[in-house]
Amino acid sequence: MWLPHAPRRVRINEVSVRDGFQIEPEFVPTEEKIALIDRLSDTGLARIEITSFVSPKAIPNLRDAEAVARQIRRHPEVIYTALVPNVRGCERALECDLDEINLVMSASETHNLANMRMTCEQSLAQFSDVTALARSGDLAVSGCVATAFGCPFEGAVAPERVQWAAGRYLELGMDSITLADTTGMADPRQVSELVEAFRKWFPGVPLTLHFHNTRGMGLANVLAGLAAGVDSFDASLGGLGGCPFAPGATGNICTEDLVHMFESAGIGTGVDLDRLLGAARDLPALVGHDTSGQVVKAGKRTELHPVPEWVRAQ
Amino acid sequence: MWLPHAPRRVRINEVSVRDGFQIEPEFVPTEEKIALIDRLSDTGLARIEITSFVSPKAIPNLRDAEAVARQIRRHPEVIYTALVPNVRGCERALECDLDEINLVMSASETHNLANMRMTCEQSLAQFSDVTALARSGDLAVSGCVATAFGCPFEGAVAPERVQWAAGRYLELGMDSITLADTTGMADPRQVSELVEAFRKWFPGVPLTLHFHNTRGMGLANVLAGLAAGVDSFDASLGGLGGCPFAPGATGNICTEDLVHMFESAGIGTGVDLDRLLGAARDLPALVGHDTSGQVVKAGKRTELHPVPEWVRAQ
Repeated sequence: MWLPHAPRRVRINEVSVRDGFQIEPEFVPTEEKIALIDRLSDTGLARIEITSFVSPKAIPNLRDAEAVARQIRRHPEVIYTALVPNVRGCERALECDLDEINLVMSASETHNLANMRMTCEQSLAQFSDVTALARSGDLAVSGCVATAFGCPFEGAVAPERVQWAAGRYLELGMDSITLADTTGMADPRQVSELVEAFRKWFPGVPLTLHFHNTRGMGLANVLAGLAAGVDSFDASLGGLGGCPFAPGATGNICTEDLVHMFESAGIGTGVDLDRLLGAARDLPALVGHDTSGQVVKAGKRTELHPVPEWVRAQ
Repeated sequence: MWLPHAPRRVRINEVSVRDGFQIEPEFVPTEEKIALIDRLSDTGLARIEITSFVSPKAIPNLRDAEAVARQIRRHPEVIYTALVPNVRGCERALECDLDEINLVMSASETHNLANMRMTCEQSLAQFSDVTALARSGDLAVSGCVATAFGCPFEGAVAPERVQWAAGRYLELGMDSITLADTTGMADPRQVSELVEAFRKWFPGVPLTLHFHNTRGMGLANVLAGLAAGVDSFDASLGGLGGCPFAPGATGNICTEDLVHMFESAGIGTGVDLDRLLGAARDLPALVGHDTSGQVVKAGKRTELHPVPEWVRAQ
């Protein structure tokens, strides 16, 4: 039997607007961001990470966080979330009336230092204040464990380290956990085993997987996660969001390719693939470069080709 | 438990030299083909499809079939195979003392007409003579069912049609079957279900899966095949070999990315990944364009990055 533990429906969380746009060479104009988010809201995506409430100096591309958060049209069935690094960011998210915030710390100490300029304990101390504030304002908190499947500096990351990080998140009262393969090091067996371990450590805790396609294994890792029962996946329109350590390599797994795979295999996503592909087709003009999406280039598998004239004539 | 029915070892069959080179815009010089095959022979690949014994008019890029077949260095553990369309092709393969020939017919009548310019019954009539001749010369015969997972003209291909095609092959005495997703239409569930059906129809018959990455699902489909117990997969160095119906889309699944995934997940391939990556890195210079391989760009996941200076200073 095909994947006996696989869910029949999954939730797709879109991260292009934050994770992708933050590293684009050119600033995407605020009104274009809003228009894209509004368009994505109408596709049936479960969650959209719309921006990051960080210092504009740290990430100039997302300096319009408030404008975006206040001007998008809120679809009642979509969870609008934003990355928040500290208490100030949480205050800004509360002022904008977001549904959820996303906190990120790496399982690898070295990666957290390089990426966040803090030790893991320093991150957790901030998260303690952030989570308390979010709770007071009825804001859901999702905790992301970055480099959960490997660190580009340290190499292998012990599962116990992931357990430690997620455990600390849950002690702080976070509502859900994302395990992120930040630089595309995960393999399908590792995904399967880490998800199984997570279920034993933290039964019933909502789990999302975040994969990159850096080494071509992105959708295979999704399938391994699905087979292990995971029903929530991050992805990025056009696969936006690269890995700074792998020039030329693809970044996040591509939302439209992911939805195409799920829907082809009979796993419900709730996403209108044609609308999503419409947004994906307009993306190169928006960011000024080609994207890594395959379905945009090849068409859905149900799009047939005309039979050659000379064959029909026979 | 991680994929309880998955084999621990798999065989990788390299098709770039035939399936890839035949549609390259430029002729790859004979001595370069030979050098590449010799290099691939030393990587541990199980089988290499080295050329096609077709008319030089039909496929000018492979007009050097005899020269390639006669001048390569034969590694005792590698199976050297070639595509053969008819009795004349089989005679040429016998003269060159190949190990195996590969016969291809589409499950879809329309695709067979467009691709082979023959009805399926006409193909099978030829294969009857070819198989008899091969038998007399101690040449193994592998039968490939093209468009087994979908036809770009007809759409869905009924499993019964695949059963019919493979059944006819086996009646003719072919030794093994390949199910090919010729234009990248397969999804993981379909792979799982078709493999299960194949096992019931033809217990014990050696089965190879041939996937394209046209819509990004190539390695996920491999994983689905592996989970269903398949231990033999076609792939192409650098993902060479495109789909003429999807400009810009990737073609065959990429051998080095496939081996990287298997080895990362603890599935033995017998392939020396570093040697294979060496050949893959030299491929763009050989064919004059970039390839779709991801690991070549990103590096193996075990290749770590230097810790930033300012982090080390802390």
